[in-house]
Amino acid sequence: MHPTFQRVALVGKYHESGSSAIVESTRAVISDLANFLSGMSCEIVLDKSTAESTGLEEFRTLEVPEIGEQCDLCVVVGGDGTMLGVGRQLATYGTPLIGINQGRLGFITDISLEHYREVLPLMLAGEFEEDHRSLMLGKVMREGVCVFEAHAMNDVVVNRGAASGMVELRVEVDGHFVANHRADGIIVATPTGSTAYSLSAGGPLLHPLVPAWALVPIAPHSLSNRPIVLADPVEIAIEIVAGRDASATFDMQSMTSLHHGDRIVVRRSEFRARFLHPKGWSYFDTLRRKLHWNTGGS
Amino acid sequence: MHPTFQRVALVGKYHESGSSAIVESTRAVISDLANFLSGMSCEIVLDKSTAESTGLEEFRTLEVPEIGEQCDLCVVVGGDGTMLGVGRQLATYGTPLIGINQGRLGFITDISLEHYREVLPLMLAGEFEEDHRSLMLGKVMREGVCVFEAHAMNDVVVNRGAASGMVELRVEVDGHFVANHRADGIIVATPTGSTAYSLSAGGPLLHPLVPAWALVPIAPHSLSNRPIVLADPVEIAIEIVAGRDASATFDMQSMTSLHHGDRIVVRRSEFRARFLHPKGWSYFDTLRRKLHWNTGGS
Amino acid sequence: MHPTFQRVALVGKYHESGSSAIVESTRAVISDLANFLSGMSCEIVLDKSTAESTGLEEFRTLEVPEIGEQCDLCVVVGGDGTMLGVGRQLATYGTPLIGINQGRLGFITDISLEHYREVLPLMLAGEFEEDHRSLMLGKVMREGVCVFEAHAMNDVVVNRGAASGMVELRVEVDGHFVANHRADGIIVATPTGSTAYSLSAGGPLLHPLVPAWALVPIAPHSLSNRPIVLADPVEIAIEIVAGRDASATFDMQSMTSLHHGDRIVVRRSEFRARFLHPKGWSYFDTLRRKLHWNTGGS
Amino acid sequence: MHPTFQRVALVGKYHESGSSAIVESTRAVISDLANFLSGMSCEIVLDKSTAESTGLEEFRTLEVPEIGEQCDLCVVVGGDGTMLGVGRQLATYGTPLIGINQGRLGFITDISLEHYREVLPLMLAGEFEEDHRSLMLGKVMREGVCVFEAHAMNDVVVNRGAASGMVELRVEVDGHFVANHRADGIIVATPTGSTAYSLSAGGPLLHPLVPAWALVPIAPHSLSNRPIVLADPVEIAIEIVAGRDASATFDMQSMTSLHHGDRIVVRRSEFRARFLHPKGWSYFDTLRRKLHWNTGGS
Repeated sequence: MHPTFQRVALVGKYHESGSSAIVESTRAVISDLANFLSGMSCEIVLDKSTAESTGLEEFRTLEVPEIGEQCDLCVVVGGDGTMLGVGRQLATYGTPLIGINQGRLGFITDISLEHYREVLPLMLAGEFEEDHRSLMLGKVMREGVCVFEAHAMNDVVVNRGAASGMVELRVEVDGHFVANHRADGIIVATPTGSTAYSLSAGGPLLHPLVPAWALVPIAPHSLSNRPIVLADPVEIAIEIVAGRDASATFDMQSMTSLHHGDRIVVRRSEFRARFLHPKGWSYFDTLRRKLHWNTGGS
Repeated sequence: MHPTFQRVALVGKYHESGSSAIVESTRAVISDLANFLSGMSCEIVLDKSTAESTGLEEFRTLEVPEIGEQCDLCVVVGGDGTMLGVGRQLATYGTPLIGINQGRLGFITDISLEHYREVLPLMLAGEFEEDHRSLMLGKVMREGVCVFEAHAMNDVVVNRGAASGMVELRVEVDGHFVANHRADGIIVATPTGSTAYSLSAGGPLLHPLVPAWALVPIAPHSLSNRPIVLADPVEIAIEIVAGRDASATFDMQSMTSLHHGDRIVVRRSEFRARFLHPKGWSYFDTLRRKLHWNTGGS
Repeated sequence: MHPTFQRVALVGKYHESGSSAIVESTRAVISDLANFLSGMSCEIVLDKSTAESTGLEEFRTLEVPEIGEQCDLCVVVGGDGTMLGVGRQLATYGTPLIGINQGRLGFITDISLEHYREVLPLMLAGEFEEDHRSLMLGKVMREGVCVFEAHAMNDVVVNRGAASGMVELRVEVDGHFVANHRADGIIVATPTGSTAYSLSAGGPLLHPLVPAWALVPIAPHSLSNRPIVLADPVEIAIEIVAGRDASATFDMQSMTSLHHGDRIVVRRSEFRARFLHPKGWSYFDTLRRKLHWNTGGS
Repeated sequence: MHPTFQRVALVGKYHESGSSAIVESTRAVISDLANFLSGMSCEIVLDKSTAESTGLEEFRTLEVPEIGEQCDLCVVVGGDGTMLGVGRQLATYGTPLIGINQGRLGFITDISLEHYREVLPLMLAGEFEEDHRSLMLGKVMREGVCVFEAHAMNDVVVNRGAASGMVELRVEVDGHFVANHRADGIIVATPTGSTAYSLSAGGPLLHPLVPAWALVPIAPHSLSNRPIVLADPVEIAIEIVAGRDASATFDMQSMTSLHHGDRIVVRRSEFRARFLHPKGWSYFDTLRRKLHWNTGGS
């Protein structure tokens, strides 16, 4: 076994409103996986929430930050959402993650329940591809004071209020005025987020190795307001110029009721998430399967 | 003078929060226009709100529905928004409207303040193009009961709540299942509305003579969920399947906090708005100027 | 049996370069189908080309126009391309068509080889949905003289030459100037064609009941040059203003090396194709399946 | 004066079919500019073609590659096309360029005839912004042999033949299979080219500092075939799988009649063009003006 993967943490999908059948299924999967990895001489640790939601009591438990401090590897069972949530927290610690999807293929959780028994031993032996994902650090500045701060792996979204017409947003990049956009909102997406909301809004796909963000207007009033890709060392500032009840969302966390003059400032985080994939993994294979390219359809 | 244009109503732009300078300007324009038309032997009537907001007291005033009942023509001074608002109310009565824009060219308010003295006499003499615009009648049905009803000249929009992820919307056309859309929302636009929000969301332009609606998803999750144009005799039903705080907006009027199972039902109204344009008017000329086609730019 | 479906013509997919295996397969399918329909007391006629390519000799053969004159129904086995080709020729005669797809579901050929034995008896007994598709009549006018003329069921496309930069195209609708478009080309699509090339170029889907064409620029220089839907009684003229080696294509037939000043003129044909579908058929079901809506994918 | 800008070359717009009026105008501009720069103690050299087309005989002339070898600066008078053509040739030598536009603002030629007298002295004194643009080196490989090679500053485009249906193109990135695209073609665009053809085809804007290419399908058959941005150290290979008369175009140079199996291979050039702009220049200012953002229009 790869000497660095001694202590392995397991995290299951969070099911806030999970039915007992789903909880049972997650419990069985985590339990099997723990036994399988124990059999490979790994020391198993369980994420505290996962242990509580599944009722698995035979393993040591840690909070996610403690996993970052104490574990060599984190194996996540769930979908891309769970993986991104844990990846965001572990980025500070540099802990690598492996994602196992419970249902359908994810962009990041690319190992299926059926295949992990073949794949994990090879990966633990050092046969893997590293896939580093950049993170954004977003802030909301009000009258010069930071009133909200969060990391985002997918995107920072500034949105109009529901049923309130357009917002007008002033965009600056490194202090240079870009434009005043009237739109439903603006998305700043990482390469990871470029396959999520940004794609729905008309943004381009960004390969994870591209050190850039996509700045994508949502339903812009001006037809020439097209997505623009910016080198990621820049600082992007989005100021609320007009419009009621605008909000800023950092991945899933939102700050609502923004004021005119509030500035959402986005920079590259100094940390990045480390995802491990089976040897031979290609970003393009995942993309092709997720987007149904070459399936003979339209 | 065209015998049918005896009694002419004037409506000015509503300025909810108008500065005194704007009110003064509107007052001057309406006053000049009233004198000009009086000089052509028209009997002048003022919209009640316009009279109140401008302080013009020398004319008979009527509410908009009374204008519909009693007047032969309604001249609106303002932007497209004012024109559509009045047009929607007058559609029931078949009263024709002429639009004079105060600032920049509108899609419908295509006569400028500089030119009305040349243009109006010809139009009142019968030299005009008729431009009929269809209206939608939209309803919100909850457990079989209509809880909201409104006419729309531009669009009916079903939207997710702010900062609440996607909605899932089930679309049916004449009782046929079309698809479940996961998106920010869906727009049902008239030809008139096809140059407004629908265009920003990627919808096609619909010429006013096309008897159809555009059904346009907003930032749809599935990339193959493209705008679809439907013959306007159909009944379109959009049901809220999932998502919090969805809302339905009929032109500017919104109903918020929709429930799962609520159905927004859209049909063609039996009425349509009648806009009059100067002889030789072409929809395409307006389109070309508004969309900056052929200006040598990008 | 529905009395009007006495004499039934069969047409197979044309295989210009068909391998012997494909020819054998088509021969078997046509032969089975002929026997099946003969067993239902239909008089069977074979399209002459189909008879020749498959070597089936036991049936009377007719050219497609003779089928139009003499037969009550035409059953086509193949893909949408074959169906549209035959439909275009039979439109003049009003002969209804039924489409059986040999491989995957088509937009129009919606009956599979596995199901025709259940479906055809019901349809021949009068249980069917009629689906009328409009046709365009396109002409190329050079110095006032028509130098090319063809019907199109999908689209008329005006294209730049390969490796020759943009064309500049002047568009007029009923004599009104619309715009000069600089682009790779322009598509005028019928509702039938709206699911084909037009869709790839960013055009909207048009329901077959919408009496309209979509005018869709291909990679237009100006970002505000958006697809526009026009009521189908109009005459659309597209003039070659600049660009070398432009061509006009009417469904599959092309006229190349167009001159500056050449005008491609498109009008609605007085004829339309009549397609029959099984009872309960819905355009939206086909659309949903062909475009992979609601498959859980992106 | 900035000591490095001793010897300055001037290049005028090439007018293959220039009228005498245009030639006269170019002659006057180049002559004025030469005198102006001479007055600043620069040694003036003329591009040989420019000298010939304008008939200016009083200056030493050099071919463009000789300019690269011998001059400290090249001032181009013309549009973006001329600037890119000269920039492509000078990239090997590292010679900086300044662009003066004769007519309307270009993306790169951002100094107007009216302003160069104020702007150039400051720039020659060292007050400028450097703007480096990456170049692509494209090759056509046939059976393992390179049959065509060229640099491109804007884009490499693989296109279907005119009037010949789609091409099918197999895309690989660093040897990884991406997808088989059926489309009108594919564009590989540099950041510089992202405001040109790529933008018309739906590609994103790439800021010049983003070390990436945009891979943009033209009218792709599959609606999920979206533009993808790739880190520019990669090697992109596009293979002709199906389709007649495909061509490859490198900026303006084309190779037509490609065979099935031909591979167009694109890599980053080791050279890059150096453009100089007036102090305070911002890419976003140019973008905003060229794309008519914030002009109050649609």
